[in-house]
Amino acid sequence: MRAVCLLSGGMDSSTLAYVAKDSGFSLIALHANYGQRTEGKEERAARAVAAAVGVEEFIVINLAYFKAIGGSSLTDHLQEVDDFQPDHAHIPTTYVPFRNANLLAIATSYAEARGASAIFIGVQSQDYSGYPDCRPAFIEAFQSVISHGTRDETDITLMTPFVMMTKAQILQTGLSLGVPYALTWSCYRNEGSACGRCGSCHFRLMAFDEVGVRDPIKYEV
Amino acid sequence: MRAVCLLSGGMDSSTLAYVAKDSGFSLIALHANYGQRTEGKEERAARAVAAAVGVEEFIVINLAYFKAIGGSSLTDHLQEVDDFQPDHAHIPTTYVPFRNANLLAIATSYAEARGASAIFIGVQSQDYSGYPDCRPAFIEAFQSVISHGTRDETDITLMTPFVMMTKAQILQTGLSLGVPYALTWSCYRNEGSACGRCGSCHFRLMAFDEVGVRDPIKYEV
Repeated sequence: MRAVCLLSGGMDSSTLAYVAKDSGFSLIALHANYGQRTEGKEERAARAVAAAVGVEEFIVINLAYFKAIGGSSLTDHLQEVDDFQPDHAHIPTTYVPFRNANLLAIATSYAEARGASAIFIGVQSQDYSGYPDCRPAFIEAFQSVISHGTRDETDITLMTPFVMMTKAQILQTGLSLGVPYALTWSCYRNEGSACGRCGSCHFRLMAFDEVGVRDPIKYEV
Repeated sequence: MRAVCLLSGGMDSSTLAYVAKDSGFSLIALHANYGQRTEGKEERAARAVAAAVGVEEFIVINLAYFKAIGGSSLTDHLQEVDDFQPDHAHIPTTYVPFRNANLLAIATSYAEARGASAIFIGVQSQDYSGYPDCRPAFIEAFQSVISHGTRDETDITLMTPFVMMTKAQILQTGLSLGVPYALTWSCYRNEGSACGRCGSCHFRLMAFDEVGVRDPIKYEV
């Protein structure tokens, strides 16, 4: 059994790779650079996690067009990355338009060409940042696109084990599987010490706090 | 009214750009290089057609990962491009896995970032080559992905005016709109004279024959 696993090198996707491996899949790890600020740091984290979990193949995709598209503070370095705002009615500036659909389309192309029967993506909708391309309805619709848009003999299941889990539950799962969180990277803002204040750091720190474990990475605050 | 128009530079997508323009849209033309054999020729054709119809912006996207993915005679230059085979049960070797989903994902990212309300894609399912990512069910499913996976205030309609038309009907439409077919390129195999024998040349020549007009481009046979 082979699966394509989207691996950013953050806390969720790193846990995801361990969950997929633990479910018996042999992994093709897919990592995307799309001109995000912390591109180099994320790729190094993803490579380290892939080496730790053991993968068949580690693929880096360059989606430079997201920088040209703009519209997000993650890829437009003239915009500031917001500190976390507890305001769910408002989509944060870090939203990259339709990014997950782009990632899933590539993952499906790879899965079809390599005969993988599953694609793992670490989206979660519980304490998520309000990104529309993390919603369960989006995932269900994409499964239908995969079913209709690939060869009739191709059978690929979109696996989203975290979609109804909280970040703390994901962390708990990862700790029980021995995920090396010291190797992972979540911060949207820095490549040195994590900022501790952006949306991504906020949710990560909250999860470690809830579980009662110290986050092994360095924060600037 | 603004629309993103997928423009390969072939007969269908060039006609599509004229249909979209004729419907009152201002156009962002999106052209993709994905390591296909006739990449340079297609891009020049797309640029020439875009200049002729008049566009707001012409964007070239590099999807080099399709070459790495392989699995298609269009991108794997060690495989031969088949001559047309009248065998609809069999998907031709020129199928690029899930290519149209990748193109539509990028088009949606651009449309959302630029405030476009429509995406035009020239798929047709009448005398098409049997590619799964041209089927009406695939297009319907992708519309649902767009609706669920973009901001709530984003409203993007996938426009497929050719989905139920034959290639001859598309050509007839294009001739009435003055599409400069001499500028377009369809051949999968060559960059000089069109081969006249691949699936793409086959359907193009059949359409010109049916309409009773001479195709203005050069063929080697």
